[in-house]
Amino acid sequence: MMDAPLLVSSILRHAEAYHSTTEIVSRTTEGPIHRYSYADLAGRSKQVANALQKIGLRQGDRVGTLAWNGYRHMELYFGISGSGFVCHTINPRLFREQIAFIIAHAQDQVLFTDLTFVPILEAMADTLKGLKAVVVMTNAANMPQSDKLPGLVCYETMIADESEAFDWPLLDENAASGLCYTSGTTGDPKGVLYSHRSTVLHAMSVALPDVMALSATDAVSAIVPMFHVNAWGMPYAAAIVGAKLVMPGPKLDGESLHGLFEQEGVTMTAGVPTVWLGLLDWMEAHGKTFTSLKRVLIGGSAAPPVTITRFKRLGVDPRQGWGMTETSPIGLAAALKAKHQALSAEQKLPLEVKQGRPLFGMEFRVIGSDGRSVPRDGKSFGALSVRGPWVAARYFNSDPSAAHEVEGWFNTGDIVTMDDDGFVQIVDRTKDVVKSGGEWISSIELENIAQAHPSIKEAAVVARPDERWGERPVLVVQLKPGASFSKQDLKELYTGKISKWSIPEDVIIVAEMPHTATGKLLKREIREIVLRESSERSPDKVVSQITDQS
Amino acid sequence: MMDAPLLVSSILRHAEAYHSTTEIVSRTTEGPIHRYSYADLAGRSKQVANALQKIGLRQGDRVGTLAWNGYRHMELYFGISGSGFVCHTINPRLFREQIAFIIAHAQDQVLFTDLTFVPILEAMADTLKGLKAVVVMTNAANMPQSDKLPGLVCYETMIADESEAFDWPLLDENAASGLCYTSGTTGDPKGVLYSHRSTVLHAMSVALPDVMALSATDAVSAIVPMFHVNAWGMPYAAAIVGAKLVMPGPKLDGESLHGLFEQEGVTMTAGVPTVWLGLLDWMEAHGKTFTSLKRVLIGGSAAPPVTITRFKRLGVDPRQGWGMTETSPIGLAAALKAKHQALSAEQKLPLEVKQGRPLFGMEFRVIGSDGRSVPRDGKSFGALSVRGPWVAARYFNSDPSAAHEVEGWFNTGDIVTMDDDGFVQIVDRTKDVVKSGGEWISSIELENIAQAHPSIKEAAVVARPDERWGERPVLVVQLKPGASFSKQDLKELYTGKISKWSIPEDVIIVAEMPHTATGKLLKREIREIVLRESSERSPDKVVSQITDQS
Repeated sequence: MMDAPLLVSSILRHAEAYHSTTEIVSRTTEGPIHRYSYADLAGRSKQVANALQKIGLRQGDRVGTLAWNGYRHMELYFGISGSGFVCHTINPRLFREQIAFIIAHAQDQVLFTDLTFVPILEAMADTLKGLKAVVVMTNAANMPQSDKLPGLVCYETMIADESEAFDWPLLDENAASGLCYTSGTTGDPKGVLYSHRSTVLHAMSVALPDVMALSATDAVSAIVPMFHVNAWGMPYAAAIVGAKLVMPGPKLDGESLHGLFEQEGVTMTAGVPTVWLGLLDWMEAHGKTFTSLKRVLIGGSAAPPVTITRFKRLGVDPRQGWGMTETSPIGLAAALKAKHQALSAEQKLPLEVKQGRPLFGMEFRVIGSDGRSVPRDGKSFGALSVRGPWVAARYFNSDPSAAHEVEGWFNTGDIVTMDDDGFVQIVDRTKDVVKSGGEWISSIELENIAQAHPSIKEAAVVARPDERWGERPVLVVQLKPGASFSKQDLKELYTGKISKWSIPEDVIIVAEMPHTATGKLLKREIREIVLRESSERSPDKVVSQITDQS
Repeated sequence: MMDAPLLVSSILRHAEAYHSTTEIVSRTTEGPIHRYSYADLAGRSKQVANALQKIGLRQGDRVGTLAWNGYRHMELYFGISGSGFVCHTINPRLFREQIAFIIAHAQDQVLFTDLTFVPILEAMADTLKGLKAVVVMTNAANMPQSDKLPGLVCYETMIADESEAFDWPLLDENAASGLCYTSGTTGDPKGVLYSHRSTVLHAMSVALPDVMALSATDAVSAIVPMFHVNAWGMPYAAAIVGAKLVMPGPKLDGESLHGLFEQEGVTMTAGVPTVWLGLLDWMEAHGKTFTSLKRVLIGGSAAPPVTITRFKRLGVDPRQGWGMTETSPIGLAAALKAKHQALSAEQKLPLEVKQGRPLFGMEFRVIGSDGRSVPRDGKSFGALSVRGPWVAARYFNSDPSAAHEVEGWFNTGDIVTMDDDGFVQIVDRTKDVVKSGGEWISSIELENIAQAHPSIKEAAVVARPDERWGERPVLVVQLKPGASFSKQDLKELYTGKISKWSIPEDVIIVAEMPHTATGKLLKREIREIVLRESSERSPDKVVSQITDQS
């Protein structure tokens, strides 16, 4: 067989040759809709490649992007990676210090930025002195004045005189093409370096019918940001199949998305549950329907069952997916099988809200508390590890991490169940699961049960160190105004729902539950509360502080 | 990224792990329906692998198969390739001498055969002395008595005591996994060696929505034989997506196929136009419909437009595909794009009967008579070359061929047009096109026009050497009983339909058109007729022999 490497440039060359007139539509940062074709994309990506040659980069050098989803970002995806450099997409929603850390750690040589982020960059200008250029992705008319940033260049000016001809180099398919940092909640962000091979294989895989099901009849809208694990591979996958691509720019509110989908005949889209909540709420409030949208891939976090149901009511087929920065990202998709087709909507729902089953190429294992693979019964749970051609073997320029402790596997940090069909469901994070007497207890399962109690506004379950059992679960709750909750209520709440040894040992009532800025429970802080309360008083004393109505 | 090779065994491991209960249904050579699961397939493939270890083969050794589509053939696909040997599928429809040539040329060490073909092998037993074993794919009860064949073994007996555990070796993905010989009409058959990488990439590609659109909700029936370019990759692609697989065995008549499709709920199938003609005829004669079939891929030769229309009338979406043994095979598929959706059925048909547009990874070029790429206008034509990760770089153990003359490209031998969307249409074979004064004239186009004339039963156009023009087209016809055709008729027939210089120079009437055994025009013989006739008499004389009614 011919030696034909899988390259990011081969994706663009395919789209240019066989889908030249297919449209790419972008809502620009400046506001108006911009539209052009894959042929235009190819021409301008080559202009970018030619411009990059002049800056004096070496193969493998990182080039940063700080940008929304739009056509210029697409040009960078192909122009940077295609010509042998590494397209380093940076999440502009990170803290300023993290952005500075990431740019320095990646040793970015050039930074491309949307207009929106120029003020952020100006505020951190002293950390950007190593950059050869900061290119603002706009035209001369909108070019900002700034003497704070080094080598400030206007994107359109930079490429204007470049040739639209460029011979994409024949690279090693294992060479790096992209870089993305995890926005881990603890420690410094860690970089994941994608290769041309992993990028192409992942894109082919996600285009398959049981993942995104992309074809040349589709108009695809990447709502998940291009700075977030390559928008789940959609820009590449769309080009591979020749789908029209519709990019929302910075406007992700319900009204803007619905308007864009309707105007551009979007048939398929992908994004996180929060965005869909906004869209569905706005549509219901305004009595709107979809005329073209057929399918939506939901990932980033688990979609609430009601989101699945609401999409179905609108004639849209929702599909849960799962992935991580370390897995390119997609590893699981919850496409039902032939055997499920006869199920009722109610019977399908528990499967549809699972994270999904493995894409071909991705191999998963679930290791229980005894170090062995757990039964594939959809109930037993263990730690999820994965391996495959689009899984990171290590972090970029970092010491070996605990996640790569087991040779050849990446530990996802999730505690999951898997059923006989391969459907995976996350029941907890490894760091949150309660390890009691050699058994694992899912904090999320206990929280979900507590959350349903009429007195409880919000519930958290964390581990409390225990001499005999290692750890025991403790329930921490914030009550609804005027409500009460006793230790007897605790027993009644859980008895019969879970095994006896999983019932929380104790309950602690707090006035206000601690949260992160994005609304997630701050489990670390809750653990501290439990430790403090437990050392200060005996369990009896805790109970005595509760309004005991038993 | 992790170093994870693309292996045939990884396909089976995926199906075993995540689609263990999905069915594989086979109509056996013996008659009855056999059904089991991907888990069973995996277990028995490992038994095959263990049995092969004992025969004493070296990695890369070829193992031949002479078999219909069925579960044991699937076990060989995975058992042979997965364990590092080369699965060499042999076309039993070839002449005995060709089969003997192929087995010898491939240096097959072991031969697996269906019961059906034992008599054929017995008749050529003296050429099979080099084989370590001939394994008959049946059970002990049906095992034939034969003292003519070397090392005759019963398949079920051979694997019965083998373990269902086997660690598939971690092979180089560029190692050979399969071998298939072209059934070329001239010269000896030529072998194409597939690699693990090419096999996996091709299978992922054909599962995409714009080719076969395979998913875990499908029941897929491979009608194209597994001895013919791996049944177009369907056995691999079905396992990748976890589709139910339905295999017809030797019975390909309309009644058998319709019965099997209905009984097993087949949703997608693929095969050659002749088979579909038989199926459609039988169904229309018996007033039958499909209750589950949704899609059909048609390849091997161009589907007549009426076949497309008849399938659509039955609620089935037909799709033309194109490929060759040298291209694994699929390189083109005629899936329409979004821009075509508003067309009427009549407007769609001319696109749907084309060979299709390039799959991602396959790069095509069309070189005209002047050595340059022809315009992509769907009219200009030239010689079609292709390159990509599942295109043969050379023939197995053969001298460099003319088809690989141009470095890095494979010349398909087809003369085609390509339009702006990449749709390719074959207008002729390179060896049949008439090269006149630096221009190429499609013999097929001239034949199609002649074929529509009421007096003509069958028409052929071949080149006649010409001192001034190099070659000139000559029409050779067999007339309908009692009909006549003059040189004046010739002029009237073509004038206005094609450019003046393309009009055949001459017409020769023959009593009977020469055909191959399979009904194809024997152009070589027709060329000889033209040479003979032309040397024996002047053009005027030819005309004088025609009943001239002008």
